[in-house]
Amino acid sequence: MPIVHISRRERFSASHRLSRPDWTQERNLQVFGKCSNPNGHGHNYELWVTVKGAQDPETSFVTDLSALSRIIKEHVIDHVDHKNIDLDVSFMKGRYSSTENLAIAVWEQLEEPVKALGCALHCVKVQETENNYVEYHGA
Amino acid sequence: MPIVHISRRERFSASHRLSRPDWTQERNLQVFGKCSNPNGHGHNYELWVTVKGAQDPETSFVTDLSALSRIIKEHVIDHVDHKNIDLDVSFMKGRYSSTENLAIAVWEQLEEPVKALGCALHCVKVQETENNYVEYHGA
Amino acid sequence: MPIVHISRRERFSASHRLSRPDWTQERNLQVFGKCSNPNGHGHNYELWVTVKGAQDPETSFVTDLSALSRIIKEHVIDHVDHKNIDLDVSFMKGRYSSTENLAIAVWEQLEEPVKALGCALHCVKVQETENNYVEYHGA
Amino acid sequence: MPIVHISRRERFSASHRLSRPDWTQERNLQVFGKCSNPNGHGHNYELWVTVKGAQDPETSFVTDLSALSRIIKEHVIDHVDHKNIDLDVSFMKGRYSSTENLAIAVWEQLEEPVKALGCALHCVKVQETENNYVEYHGA
Amino acid sequence: MPIVHISRRERFSASHRLSRPDWTQERNLQVFGKCSNPNGHGHNYELWVTVKGAQDPETSFVTDLSALSRIIKEHVIDHVDHKNIDLDVSFMKGRYSSTENLAIAVWEQLEEPVKALGCALHCVKVQETENNYVEYHGA
Amino acid sequence: MPIVHISRRERFSASHRLSRPDWTQERNLQVFGKCSNPNGHGHNYELWVTVKGAQDPETSFVTDLSALSRIIKEHVIDHVDHKNIDLDVSFMKGRYSSTENLAIAVWEQLEEPVKALGCALHCVKVQETENNYVEYHGA
Repeated sequence: MPIVHISRRERFSASHRLSRPDWTQERNLQVFGKCSNPNGHGHNYELWVTVKGAQDPETSFVTDLSALSRIIKEHVIDHVDHKNIDLDVSFMKGRYSSTENLAIAVWEQLEEPVKALGCALHCVKVQETENNYVEYHGA
Repeated sequence: MPIVHISRRERFSASHRLSRPDWTQERNLQVFGKCSNPNGHGHNYELWVTVKGAQDPETSFVTDLSALSRIIKEHVIDHVDHKNIDLDVSFMKGRYSSTENLAIAVWEQLEEPVKALGCALHCVKVQETENNYVEYHGA
Repeated sequence: MPIVHISRRERFSASHRLSRPDWTQERNLQVFGKCSNPNGHGHNYELWVTVKGAQDPETSFVTDLSALSRIIKEHVIDHVDHKNIDLDVSFMKGRYSSTENLAIAVWEQLEEPVKALGCALHCVKVQETENNYVEYHGA
Repeated sequence: MPIVHISRRERFSASHRLSRPDWTQERNLQVFGKCSNPNGHGHNYELWVTVKGAQDPETSFVTDLSALSRIIKEHVIDHVDHKNIDLDVSFMKGRYSSTENLAIAVWEQLEEPVKALGCALHCVKVQETENNYVEYHGA
Repeated sequence: MPIVHISRRERFSASHRLSRPDWTQERNLQVFGKCSNPNGHGHNYELWVTVKGAQDPETSFVTDLSALSRIIKEHVIDHVDHKNIDLDVSFMKGRYSSTENLAIAVWEQLEEPVKALGCALHCVKVQETENNYVEYHGA
Repeated sequence: MPIVHISRRERFSASHRLSRPDWTQERNLQVFGKCSNPNGHGHNYELWVTVKGAQDPETSFVTDLSALSRIIKEHVIDHVDHKNIDLDVSFMKGRYSSTENLAIAVWEQLEEPVKALGCALHCVKVQETENNYVEYHGA
């Protein structure tokens, strides 16, 4: 059975701040620069979720895209859209809101629900600006 | 010899409808939703074809991009651009026009002609909307 | 009071065909070319609606963007998305589905509802492909 | 002398929150919805500044683009990039951080410096997401 | 009769250099900076041509887009694509290759041919990079 | 330790010409077509650099993006931006300026500096136009 990859984009607008609470603001500024502005800043994040699998013999789908979209919204977007990632997002508690940590946390949120759809999570891509993005393929 | 990947985009505008003729319209609507509208709908599809190979010692090319473009047009775009995928496209006969099936059919159309160019087909990516795409890397 | 313009994008995927029923298919092909393929073709249309007005003294908004989005969806998108423009869209009845006619029809659909929001319709832009769009500013 | 328009894009990432301090949080939520999340949210804003004028007879420029870019950075971007618009931006003090108010404030910041370049400010466009933007042409 | 605007994009890749032959290279560098590199540099230019007019009563078109595209290619693109604007382009002879001059020259190339199509040239927009563009509406 | 990929985009505008000095201009035109125009042409190139590695336990970063950006600018962009690739770029000496050769040369420029940042170079992607790009993953 041929394996096919399918990718879905969802977007969210959120604020955050890079800062370690156990560091002085001086050291935070030295390491994180403008990203540690005490009152925060924000982004329009683009999230691309790629899943892979064989085709369903009845529908020829790897997965129903509207079901995949629903899962991403329920487990990720509803938690982060129009939120402060550091203060409002339970699945980011205890992690700095770096794009790396965000991609790993999104993977953890989606791995099981995607499995329940009958396919496998392949890649989580988080694009923070038009100039940079992070990809995570699981541990 | 280093292996290099090179990708070419071609575009086509086509109509289609997701529907199994052996199902009732009721069941088609239940499974395929608005995509099974009896009179169809359509998209501006973007097709990215990625080939790989060693460089030609004379030109330093993996392949001549204008030859690759010509092949994609001859074997794919001329068949699907400004067409109805379900009714007009011979290489889609007997398959539902899901993006998954479209990517696999494009692969089958291109595998041999790309080989004849002296390189190997690596990936066919079909982007249906700005929010979703399918990738196929062969069986 | 300063006048501000605000623009909202909504998207729809639809099929259509350029063809006059009072012409032979031969003449349709001569005038409309590949756009008159008997089984149709389709596009991902982008619709940009621009309204203008003074700011609301309480909210500083020209108009509430979510209300504007709702109106566009109710009066336009719900009628055309995943539809055949020629066969399924009541507000296009009796007109060829050229992008020009589509922009004018969208203007007629939105002029009154936008007025009811307390501002004025300024421009309807319909982008059919990445290479062409039509703008209409009213009669 | 022919009049030419020239436009320059600069970008900034900022956080903000729509909320009137003289309203209850209940009313803010009712009017501003998710945009009034108490801990804020954020965007990658795109700012397009359009100036117009006759060509300089020596350089054929309406204005030197690097000078225009420098002015936008000095008077706008350095104040808002990686900042909280509500708390950190002096030129937004006393205004809600709606996109309308942001566009008007940017106009006020740039009108005189652009005049000093020998041309005239024509339009300030602030794009908040891929789906909406505001334009201001002056009072 | 309602007036409608229709816009068409064509692209070209060209090299150029900002430099006045009657200035020393020192002064050229001072005024034009890196844009006066003696061996030149280049861009992927995007050209948007906007025409306006009433609709043809038979076709509902302002103008046939394929005819408009053909005119732009014949009078502009074929002259500049994969060329050196300073050395190869007859319609730029005697002008520095600033984006302002390019937009004006394109206007002059297209004004009559567009008239011959039965509509009027409204705007020539030349986008040099993702961060800047020039618009010209005629003298 | 989970491995994460992080990608950074930088852009440059350059001119070039495809031509072998040991071939006649006739043969160059036959093989390279319009790309061998004697006076050259140019592009806005987009360079995407992808690195991979484990997260730094202190910052959670794979690598500091501003350091990665600095390295790309120092070792690549400063050499090619607003330059003629064939005549001005020392790291391209002795190679035709095909996109394939450009991607390989950028890899060679960046492999060691990226290692010095504590991570590994994964992919160099050079996009020449909106329709084609080359990727290189090392020998």
